[in-house]
Amino acid sequence: MQAELLIHADWVLPVDNADRTLTRHSLVVDQGRIVALLPRAEAETQIEASLVHDLPGQVLIPGLINAHTHAAMSLLRGIADDLPLMTWLHEHIWPAEARWVDPDFVADGTRLAVLEMLCGGVTCFNDMYFYPEVTARVCAEAGMRVLAGMIVVDFPTRYADSVDSYLERGLALYESYRGHALVRTAFAPHSIYAASREPLERVRILADELEVPVHMHLHETREEIVASLREHGERPLARLDQIGLVGPQLVAIHMTQLEEAEIERLALTGSHVVHCPESNLKLASGFCPVARLLAAGVNVALGTDGAASNNDLNLLAEMRTAALLAKGVAGSAAAVPAPQALRMATINGARALGIDDEVGSLEPGKAADIVAVDLCSPHTQPIYQVCSQLVYAASSNRITQVWIGGRQVLRDGQPLTLDPAAILGDARAWQRRISAR
Amino acid sequence: MQAELLIHADWVLPVDNADRTLTRHSLVVDQGRIVALLPRAEAETQIEASLVHDLPGQVLIPGLINAHTHAAMSLLRGIADDLPLMTWLHEHIWPAEARWVDPDFVADGTRLAVLEMLCGGVTCFNDMYFYPEVTARVCAEAGMRVLAGMIVVDFPTRYADSVDSYLERGLALYESYRGHALVRTAFAPHSIYAASREPLERVRILADELEVPVHMHLHETREEIVASLREHGERPLARLDQIGLVGPQLVAIHMTQLEEAEIERLALTGSHVVHCPESNLKLASGFCPVARLLAAGVNVALGTDGAASNNDLNLLAEMRTAALLAKGVAGSAAAVPAPQALRMATINGARALGIDDEVGSLEPGKAADIVAVDLCSPHTQPIYQVCSQLVYAASSNRITQVWIGGRQVLRDGQPLTLDPAAILGDARAWQRRISAR
Repeated sequence: MQAELLIHADWVLPVDNADRTLTRHSLVVDQGRIVALLPRAEAETQIEASLVHDLPGQVLIPGLINAHTHAAMSLLRGIADDLPLMTWLHEHIWPAEARWVDPDFVADGTRLAVLEMLCGGVTCFNDMYFYPEVTARVCAEAGMRVLAGMIVVDFPTRYADSVDSYLERGLALYESYRGHALVRTAFAPHSIYAASREPLERVRILADELEVPVHMHLHETREEIVASLREHGERPLARLDQIGLVGPQLVAIHMTQLEEAEIERLALTGSHVVHCPESNLKLASGFCPVARLLAAGVNVALGTDGAASNNDLNLLAEMRTAALLAKGVAGSAAAVPAPQALRMATINGARALGIDDEVGSLEPGKAADIVAVDLCSPHTQPIYQVCSQLVYAASSNRITQVWIGGRQVLRDGQPLTLDPAAILGDARAWQRRISAR
Repeated sequence: MQAELLIHADWVLPVDNADRTLTRHSLVVDQGRIVALLPRAEAETQIEASLVHDLPGQVLIPGLINAHTHAAMSLLRGIADDLPLMTWLHEHIWPAEARWVDPDFVADGTRLAVLEMLCGGVTCFNDMYFYPEVTARVCAEAGMRVLAGMIVVDFPTRYADSVDSYLERGLALYESYRGHALVRTAFAPHSIYAASREPLERVRILADELEVPVHMHLHETREEIVASLREHGERPLARLDQIGLVGPQLVAIHMTQLEEAEIERLALTGSHVVHCPESNLKLASGFCPVARLLAAGVNVALGTDGAASNNDLNLLAEMRTAALLAKGVAGSAAAVPAPQALRMATINGARALGIDDEVGSLEPGKAADIVAVDLCSPHTQPIYQVCSQLVYAASSNRITQVWIGGRQVLRDGQPLTLDPAAILGDARAWQRRISAR
C-alpha cells in the first residue's frame, strides 16, 4: 500500500474505547487522514510511504484539544495577578481590553497563542474573543484547527455595537468558513450575566439551524449564582434550560458551582462541560466536581482559559492539574485515572465541539492530528506505564513533532508555519505600548 | 576588584526582604560565595572576572530548595498510580521497596533524581530514605547540596534492624560529613505511626545536642489523626509536643489536617511546615491550609515528595501548583502571591533546614547557589512582571545555568557533573528488573 506518511514510534496511545497502549506500532497517513494503525513489523512490509518518521523513545497521541480559551489575551499574560477577582477584572483586564483590543491586537495575540499551543501539542482550540474573523484567518494561515467563537454580549464594544451587529458578524464568519478543513465556528454568548434573554433566544434558534455548538461561561463563581438568583429568581443553568439552551450543543465552561440535580440534568441532556482547573484555582472561582460529573456520564473536556488567568496555554500541564485536583476534590486517589485524564484532553474535547468524527483519537478515517512526545528525559524515566508517565510526569517541552490534518506544523520542536522571532518581537512591542500607559 | 565569576542578566530576583526585582544587574562570585549584587553598569567598570556569563532575556534566582523528597524512589516513578492510598502503599510501594531497596538501588535512584533536580534548578534537597550514606556520597560527587536524613523507624529493614542500629548508622553519617560544604544531615523519624515514643525521645535529645533538624511526615491524612486518637488519645502534633519535638527544629511534612489552635501552636513554637501540594492531591491526602499558616507567621516551604506520588521532582512546577491551589483553598485570588510562592521555594526552605545563613537568597556572603531561567519563549512572553512570569508561566526546561557553591553544574541546559546516558541506562535496567517480577 502506498501512503504519503508513515510514522513509527515505541508507543501509541490512540485513545480508543479500550484505552489501549500499543507498543511498537505505526501510523499511516494519506491525504490528511489516518488510514491505518498497525504493528510496526507489518507496516514495514506492507506500507510504502513517501515520508517516514522513526521516533524511538517517543509516544504518539492524538492532538490535544484546548476546549476553552481567549487566545488573543496572551498579550495580557501576567499584566495583573494575585488580585481579588473583581479588582482584577474591573481595574485591570476590562480597561486594558477596552483600550487595546482591535484587529491588530487580536492578530498578534492569537498568533502568539497559536505558536505556544502548537509547540505544546495542541492541535485544536475553542476560542471566545472579539474579531473572530481575525482569529480564523491566523489559524487558517498557521494550519491550526479552531472553533472561532461568534461572540455575543449585550453591550457595545469596538468590535460590534448591538446584538444585531454581533450576530451579523458572526454569521458572516460562519458563511465564509463553511466547509473549511480547519476553521469552524460556534456561537459564543459570553455568559448569563453578559448576554440577556433576547440574544440567548436568538442564539438558540440559530445554533439549532446551523448545528453548531453554543460556548458559554457558566456557573463559574458563587457570585454569578447569587446574582442570577437575585435578578431572575433562578440559577443560571435553570435559566438557560428554560431558554432551551441546555442540551448536546451546550459547551458549558467552568461549572464550579453544581448541585446534584444539576449534574443529573447535564447528564440527561447530553450537555458538555469544559473544566479549567488552573483558571478556577488562580481566580479562586471554586472547584468543579469533575469526578462526580464523569461518574454521572457527563462529557468533561479541558481548557486553559486565557493566558491572563493561568498563565500559560499548556494543555498537557492542565491535564495533569486536572487529574491531581480531581483526586483531592473527590477525596479519592482513584478518581480520574491517567487514561481518563488523557480522554479529557482529547476525545472529550472533540465530542464537546461536535468534531469527534474528525479528531480526538488516532483511528483510521479520522484527520491526522498527531503529536509525538519524547519520554527519554530524566523526569520521564523509568517507564512502567506509558499513559501514566504522559499524564503525571511528561513536560510539554518534550513535544517533538505535531501534524494537523496530515500537515507537519512542528518538527523537532521547531514550528514550521509560524515565525517565532517575528511573533515574539510583536509581543514585546505590545508590552512596551501597553506598559507605557 | 578581582573575582572568579561575573554573571550579567536582564533581571535578578534575589528574594531579599523587599521582594525586589532588579533589572540589568550582575552577580559577583568568588571562592564559592556571592560577594556582590550590583547594577551591570557598575559591575562592568568595577569587576575583573576570570569568567563572565552574559545572559540576556534571563532572570537569576536563588537555587530552588526541595524541602522534602525520597530521591531514590525515582526508580519507582509511575509503578502504580490511580489507586486508593492504602492499596498503593500496602500492595505496590512497600512490597517493591522491601524487594529492591539496597545500596545500589539508592545510588542509581538518587543519581537519577539528582540529575532531574539539577536540570530543574533545584540546588538543595531534604531527603528521607534508606542508606543515606549512599545518598550523601552521590550528592557530594555530583556537587549537589543535600540534607541526608538519618532515618528512623520502629521496624527492621535491610538497612537496619533496630532503633539502636538506625541511630548508630545515622550518627556515623553525621560524623563523616561534619563540616562538609554540601552535605548535612537531619534526623528523619518517618512519622508518629512508624516511630514510637522511645526512638522519638532519643531523637529529641540527639537533635538538641547536634543542633540538626527533625524531619517527619506529620498530619498527612485524616486516617493518621484518627489512628493517633484511637491509640494515644491525642492528635499526632499534640503527642509530638508532649515529647518535646515541636519547635524550631521541627520540619513537619504535609500538615493537611490542622485545627486553628494547632496553627497557632506551630507559629508560637517556630516550627516549620513543608507543603507538598502535588503529592497531597495525587494521594487525596487533604488540603494544607497554606495561606492561613503563612498569615499566622508559620514558615512554609515546598517539597515534591517522592516521584512515585507526584510523579516528577519539578520544584518550579510545584511552586506554581502551590500558588494556584492556595488561592482555591483560601477562596481568595490574592492568597500566596508570586513573590511569596518564590520565597516558599527558596528562603523558606533554607530556614526550615537551618541553612538560611548559607543559601536561599542571592545576597553577599551567601553560597553561590544560583539558577538562570530563560524567559524568551512564547509561553513566557510578553513580560509585565518578572516574578509573576516565573511563578505562573515559566517551565523548568528553560532553566539554562545552575551553580552550587560557585561551581557550575548545569551549562546551557546540560549537566556537567553527571552522565545522563549512563544514568538513564541504569534506570532502564532497574525498570526491566523490577517489571520482570
